[in-house]
Amino acid sequence: MNVIVDVCLVPMGVGVSVSTYVAACHEVLHEAGLEAKLHAYGTNIEGEWDEVMAAIKKCHEKVHELGAPRITTTIKLGTRNDREQTMADKVESVQAKLTKGREKIIPFGPEKRC
Amino acid sequence: MNVIVDVCLVPMGVGVSVSTYVAACHEVLHEAGLEAKLHAYGTNIEGEWDEVMAAIKKCHEKVHELGAPRITTTIKLGTRNDREQTMADKVESVQAKLTKGREKIIPFGPEKRC
Amino acid sequence: MNVIVDVCLVPMGVGVSVSTYVAACHEVLHEAGLEAKLHAYGTNIEGEWDEVMAAIKKCHEKVHELGAPRITTTIKLGTRNDREQTMADKVESVQAKLTKGREKIIPFGPEKRC
Amino acid sequence: MNVIVDVCLVPMGVGVSVSTYVAACHEVLHEAGLEAKLHAYGTNIEGEWDEVMAAIKKCHEKVHELGAPRITTTIKLGTRNDREQTMADKVESVQAKLTKGREKIIPFGPEKRC
Repeated sequence: MNVIVDVCLVPMGVGVSVSTYVAACHEVLHEAGLEAKLHAYGTNIEGEWDEVMAAIKKCHEKVHELGAPRITTTIKLGTRNDREQTMADKVESVQAKLTKGREKIIPFGPEKRC
Repeated sequence: MNVIVDVCLVPMGVGVSVSTYVAACHEVLHEAGLEAKLHAYGTNIEGEWDEVMAAIKKCHEKVHELGAPRITTTIKLGTRNDREQTMADKVESVQAKLTKGREKIIPFGPEKRC
Repeated sequence: MNVIVDVCLVPMGVGVSVSTYVAACHEVLHEAGLEAKLHAYGTNIEGEWDEVMAAIKKCHEKVHELGAPRITTTIKLGTRNDREQTMADKVESVQAKLTKGREKIIPFGPEKRC
Repeated sequence: MNVIVDVCLVPMGVGVSVSTYVAACHEVLHEAGLEAKLHAYGTNIEGEWDEVMAAIKKCHEKVHELGAPRITTTIKLGTRNDREQTMADKVESVQAKLTKGREKIIPFGPEKRC
């Protein structure tokens, strides 16, 4: 079962600045070979359910190791069995329907990769 | 009070394809003059609390008007009073700490705009 | 427009224990005259959109006043225009369909109030 | 690693009424031997990470089997390594700090079970 996920991990008890922990999670996702796309309030991931979930668990373990005594994470998670759909497909299907306001919208598809 | 928001609106009772409704919300956000950045599982918005919340309410009204009898929305919402921070700042502060895996991460900062 | 909300406010930069801040939010919701039901990972609220949202904004203001420099909040938010539905209705419509496992499920309807 | 979870599964493409699917998920959680507490916008679960996540995966599989072509789920998920904490502990620690408004707040602790 393929899954598209948006995950936002918040370490607690380590002060207000948490980017070090978020960066560590990106290393974990990268080592897991997962597609991970950072945005301003989380990270989009796609892949096989068990692989994605194992990676999110490793993120919790890593962030605890780095010193966070408590973590609260928000996950949005989508599955479908009617057809295949990637993260890029989702963004493109919205953009194809936009008639105005395009200059304010920053697409998140593969063509924007660094 | 400035706020950074991630919003994901899900119309119910209108079938599996919801991109038309998401595109309509982007028009609403654009008309409200808000910075809105689409990703694969939602939209990042930043602005003054009341303006952002009024726009999200208008999105619900618009999506009901378009025929969705029911809507469930997930919002993540951040405020801070220690310093100013934009959506781009949040992404950049994570990226500055990445030592590897950069090619897998798609920044979401202003330099990537179309 | 009536709304059913689940809100989970997380103060950052104030250590791991956050129940004082959550309790302060409940006072805010109570003073606003809103129905608020605490669970283990948030609070259910129902009411008119503007009243509920104004109360959530006051919660952020209150928690900043109490010393939290940063707050991240997760909100789930439902509206429908096909029929009226309360928080209790939602729980009851699930429970009516349960054929087993009842002893493990703690209903959240009005009949359970202290 | 123990985890406290709040999960809200939304089947898409099956109309506005989703309580049948939520009830089916409760059967899945019950069969998995997990503590599951229904509220008006989701279900609280506690247990060992792998068991809870396996059960949530089974919920997705079950809801697809029942005919939903698409599912979007929101999960909040907390871990801590500084001390043990149950769902009931979380609610009680907030309630102990409330000085007013008690009559509006419906505790969610074990003493309220049917």
